[in-house]
Amino acid sequence: MVLISNRIFGLILFFTFIFTNISFANNGYDLWLQYKKVENKQLLKEYTENIQAIQFFGNSETIKTALKELNIGLSGLFDNQNLFENDSPKNHLLVFGSESQLDTTYLNLIKTELSKVKKDGFVIKQIQLNGNSQIVISAKTDVGVLYGVFRFLRELQINNSLKDINIVDSPKIDVRILNHWDNLDRTVERGYAGFSLWNWHTLPDYIDQRYIDYARANASIGINGTVLTNVNANALILTPQYLEKVKALADVFRPYGIKVYLTARFSAPIEIGGLKTADPLDADVIKWWKDKTAEIYNTIPDFGGFLVKANSEGQPGPQNYGRNHVDGANMMAEALEPFGGIVMWRAFVYSEHDATDRAKQAYSEFVPYDGKFKDNVIVQVKNGAIDFQPREPFHPMFGAMPKTPLMMEFQITQEYLGFSTHLVYLPKLYEEVFETDTYREGKGSTVAKVVDGSLHNKKITGVAGVTNIGNDINWTGHHFLQANWYGFGRLAWNPHLKSEDIADEWIRQTFTNDENFIIPIKKMMIQSRETVVNYMNPYGLHHIFDTGHHYGPGPWVGSLPRPEWNPTYYHKADGFGLGFNRTKTGSNATAQYAPEIAKMYNDISTTPEKDLLWFHHVSWNHKLKNGYTLWDGMALKYQEGVNEVEDMISLWNSMEQYVDSQRFKEVKMMLNIQLKEAKWWRDACLLYFQQFSKQDLPNGVEKSSNSLKEFQSMTFPFAPGR
Amino acid sequence: MVLISNRIFGLILFFTFIFTNISFANNGYDLWLQYKKVENKQLLKEYTENIQAIQFFGNSETIKTALKELNIGLSGLFDNQNLFENDSPKNHLLVFGSESQLDTTYLNLIKTELSKVKKDGFVIKQIQLNGNSQIVISAKTDVGVLYGVFRFLRELQINNSLKDINIVDSPKIDVRILNHWDNLDRTVERGYAGFSLWNWHTLPDYIDQRYIDYARANASIGINGTVLTNVNANALILTPQYLEKVKALADVFRPYGIKVYLTARFSAPIEIGGLKTADPLDADVIKWWKDKTAEIYNTIPDFGGFLVKANSEGQPGPQNYGRNHVDGANMMAEALEPFGGIVMWRAFVYSEHDATDRAKQAYSEFVPYDGKFKDNVIVQVKNGAIDFQPREPFHPMFGAMPKTPLMMEFQITQEYLGFSTHLVYLPKLYEEVFETDTYREGKGSTVAKVVDGSLHNKKITGVAGVTNIGNDINWTGHHFLQANWYGFGRLAWNPHLKSEDIADEWIRQTFTNDENFIIPIKKMMIQSRETVVNYMNPYGLHHIFDTGHHYGPGPWVGSLPRPEWNPTYYHKADGFGLGFNRTKTGSNATAQYAPEIAKMYNDISTTPEKDLLWFHHVSWNHKLKNGYTLWDGMALKYQEGVNEVEDMISLWNSMEQYVDSQRFKEVKMMLNIQLKEAKWWRDACLLYFQQFSKQDLPNGVEKSSNSLKEFQSMTFPFAPGR
Repeated sequence: MVLISNRIFGLILFFTFIFTNISFANNGYDLWLQYKKVENKQLLKEYTENIQAIQFFGNSETIKTALKELNIGLSGLFDNQNLFENDSPKNHLLVFGSESQLDTTYLNLIKTELSKVKKDGFVIKQIQLNGNSQIVISAKTDVGVLYGVFRFLRELQINNSLKDINIVDSPKIDVRILNHWDNLDRTVERGYAGFSLWNWHTLPDYIDQRYIDYARANASIGINGTVLTNVNANALILTPQYLEKVKALADVFRPYGIKVYLTARFSAPIEIGGLKTADPLDADVIKWWKDKTAEIYNTIPDFGGFLVKANSEGQPGPQNYGRNHVDGANMMAEALEPFGGIVMWRAFVYSEHDATDRAKQAYSEFVPYDGKFKDNVIVQVKNGAIDFQPREPFHPMFGAMPKTPLMMEFQITQEYLGFSTHLVYLPKLYEEVFETDTYREGKGSTVAKVVDGSLHNKKITGVAGVTNIGNDINWTGHHFLQANWYGFGRLAWNPHLKSEDIADEWIRQTFTNDENFIIPIKKMMIQSRETVVNYMNPYGLHHIFDTGHHYGPGPWVGSLPRPEWNPTYYHKADGFGLGFNRTKTGSNATAQYAPEIAKMYNDISTTPEKDLLWFHHVSWNHKLKNGYTLWDGMALKYQEGVNEVEDMISLWNSMEQYVDSQRFKEVKMMLNIQLKEAKWWRDACLLYFQQFSKQDLPNGVEKSSNSLKEFQSMTFPFAPGR
Repeated sequence: MVLISNRIFGLILFFTFIFTNISFANNGYDLWLQYKKVENKQLLKEYTENIQAIQFFGNSETIKTALKELNIGLSGLFDNQNLFENDSPKNHLLVFGSESQLDTTYLNLIKTELSKVKKDGFVIKQIQLNGNSQIVISAKTDVGVLYGVFRFLRELQINNSLKDINIVDSPKIDVRILNHWDNLDRTVERGYAGFSLWNWHTLPDYIDQRYIDYARANASIGINGTVLTNVNANALILTPQYLEKVKALADVFRPYGIKVYLTARFSAPIEIGGLKTADPLDADVIKWWKDKTAEIYNTIPDFGGFLVKANSEGQPGPQNYGRNHVDGANMMAEALEPFGGIVMWRAFVYSEHDATDRAKQAYSEFVPYDGKFKDNVIVQVKNGAIDFQPREPFHPMFGAMPKTPLMMEFQITQEYLGFSTHLVYLPKLYEEVFETDTYREGKGSTVAKVVDGSLHNKKITGVAGVTNIGNDINWTGHHFLQANWYGFGRLAWNPHLKSEDIADEWIRQTFTNDENFIIPIKKMMIQSRETVVNYMNPYGLHHIFDTGHHYGPGPWVGSLPRPEWNPTYYHKADGFGLGFNRTKTGSNATAQYAPEIAKMYNDISTTPEKDLLWFHHVSWNHKLKNGYTLWDGMALKYQEGVNEVEDMISLWNSMEQYVDSQRFKEVKMMLNIQLKEAKWWRDACLLYFQQFSKQDLPNGVEKSSNSLKEFQSMTFPFAPGR
């Protein structure tokens, strides 16, 4: 079509008018399940030749779901081409079904592989039958088959060849679970991507398409559980009015292999049960929880169990009645036991009545209980001992409780990472934690081995992620933060995976298989975590976020009633230097680690510089390995963080040709916010700490155009996620 | 493709496997701007033959926007077919541009039509030039051209022929505006479709695609203003931190002809200005508002003005300082005057210190001020004197203030209409109000003529709608409630339009041009308003909603501190009968109407039965026109409402073939909720009123399976919209 225009100032301009279809806009809703037409023609030919028809065995809801997913996936990847119109082909079938349903002809040909499958793992194998090739997807469970189907679709999306495909993959973790900190009014604590997905008002009768697509996305990466409600819990969720709503969600999620869990408010027996106490040793309380649990299982037969935040940040718990965490957890565990449910009991505790270094309190409180919890209790431990900082040393509890299942708790939502406007690829952080050696059983005792149970042969294993999902159309606010949901799921499946490989497959599925995009963007993602550390918390600084909402810098905050809520508690800046002495001359938090680690951290010269100020109070003039003083080095790190964001922007701007216009523009706007805020961090922190160092900024560090006072006077009464 | 399955129980089943593309799912995001391919091949041919190329004149942002919209619309309607590949066609052009830009050749051919255009109206005309036909869209303003383009696209979407097209259409109202009751924390007062569109946290740097699509949708129906914030206002919106965010939205909306307005908290001079008073006659206060207004216009040169809720339901206002509404409104108007801004001053006032019938208070307070407001003040009056009930007699202020511009305030969000789960087509309600005769200048003095200014020659005219939009993917929660946004806009453009015609064009654009769908569905929509009246508030009952959240029935509520907040205040059920005596023997609210109306309402025999209990306290045994007693008739009306919802469900279920599967299923789920709640209304209200009537239910009315006590004990602590 031709566009004739534009007669102004006597000119007549001629344009070629190209119709652009609005549907080319990609709002990101489809996540990594884009299923765009395979662009590589040769591969497309290979795929379609190898999938002439589909044969499936079994008729469970999960098997039907697998078929539905193949339908969605292949119709997109093959662009709805009716390539195969034989009436009843016998060759080049895609065959799927579980071990118990699959035809023995097929079973015999995958016997060896199937014997290696554990739990909900799967086999995908090209076999030869009567001289023709078929692809078989099988597993020991129907959910395993579904996982195999999703994996198969991924292989196509990332353009792997099907020739001689032979994949055996099993999850290394039992409980792979999202924690939603979602309140019943749909606000999300620490949520930055809109509001809660769960529309409690219209449940149970209205099933939002989101619920289904949420389940699809989770199942595609192996997530098998979801805690629907905030750890700061409301007991109403356990009332019949809400349980029928929870049931509706459980019904949606079940075919996708996802179990529903709830947070249990410890004082629920009082609040909704009409009891006078919630004492875990009180007979009425015990009965109340048993009855309530039976009621839940009557409604939701595959209910997963409870997640409990007790005696933590004001939440009620067994200590309110002179009991301890074991009393509380075991009481609930007993109620769940007959139904196969579990208790996830959080170890995130610290007390305003305890003057000990906050970093030490969870270990001190929980490690003595090792071996005392019932078999269906798993203790949920944050990756670090403080609170989801851009970087923390691993939590000393990992490896220190050989007789107690410990579950990793990661935060996917970016409470301390710039909210959802900062591009930070978190699998890099998760990988760093998992790879760390605890030395608890000698060298090689990595956190991953603690968490996957192999170090101490644990009865239950689990990895939890505090989700970054909200009702924003693209789920996570920022398109790139979908990668954190994705990568979390992949690492929960297998904590030994490499974050770089995960980034690779995510980019291919989400954006393109074009290497010109993948290589630089993957590099940017991998670097992004260090970048945010650089401009927020270099050299082991931590918890210097503005109060309450944790948006932006607040190193000056020192007047909050609980000392350990104050940034000044953590950075301890003074005329001498900066940092928290946690060595044996200080809080001696280092003693909570294995001797090898303690020794390393006790000595400033062997402490990795990334953790320097976490463990040491360091002179401003301390010489860093790069020859700079701490002050100069720190200032340069802040600047480096800013520079790196500028590099991200340049890179992204050069990638326009590879990305649809909507996502290109949206990521671009987000990066500009990130740069603005990186500078804010740099300027506010350096101006503040400069008051103590009394030194000039080194060459190469830009000077702030705002005063410290201006930064200090900024307020954000409606910052999201409160 | 062939699907071979399903070998269980020794069976082999063969299916034809049809790939269904996930994109066939329609989530409703595109509203009435679906622009699906024209299915009628003959029409498609006519359209494409008549639009061989586009020529436009002018280069303003609005003209570019018009071009962009044509691009989006035509690419969808013509399915991206590159039908026209001439290099430079001279025939069958679509030509657009404003009067001042358009080529004189074209201008001369539309001269007559253009002379009839008022304000932002437009001409669309097929002309003959050198023996060839062209279509010209023109207007006196660029926004008029944009409206013309949207109208042109609508003509195509609803499958009207272009042959001899000759449309002249001008808005009859100046200010066609949405009121968002959106708070800065993104909760929406009385919002039932998710949370606020305005993501204040990421503004001004992140422009959500929603903002653009919101502007597109509004411009397509002629809405030209938006009040971004709740009438229960927060002064922070007037601080520089927020004004730069408001500016970002204003910049997005400007090309679409949409002005931004804000709610002004009367006490802002104290809260953010540091003054000790907000007295509108205080010199510092006057200066503060002048400075603040200048500051706003410095940021947003086309800022629309303020909407103010003062001395109403606890909001601060001039009466706090012994002043009156005129003092307050004129003080702000003076500040806005130099910039062309307006004050929309709400008349929704009633006082807990005034024992008068609440229905009378606004009239009593405001009518004496007629003629005292400045020229740029418009008083915003709700359609009825109580509060957005399913049915209310028109507000007596309409027609009673000949010297004061009065703006209609409708509620599009369904505070008292079942929230967003009930299908209620509100243009039917709006039409009923507009068509009502006030008799203020004799017969024919309709509310529409009051509002469009023609009755008393008003200087400004306006229609406001409290929007039903939230961040749900489909904007309004329920697909059919998009029609209320649409219909509101159309009636704000022209309050004399017929709601049935609006439904027709909405269905065609949103769903299909298939008459088999249109005819029954249009009938259902038209009936839907009476249906909700039947099962909630028949015969003039009103305000018997449960307290606070207004979700579901609460006729028994009578213990709230302010008497006029209690349902019992409104229905006055007793052993004798039911209803509020507002005749001269009662509160004499009827005296606020023109004598013709007052006379009609004072006499029970001439009072329309739809308003019966609004004006009369009526014996349970009063004979209705249909021969039933009030009790029996009322019970039957409740039942009728329920039956009608059942009919809606049957009808919808028979329409599956005409609707995409996602919207079909979603509407179906909503209708089932509506039925459940219609029954709840029927049962709860009849059980409650039966205590007074002491009569059995008549034949044909189903008995409740719940007790009154059960209904009374239901609580909804997290009902949305609080």
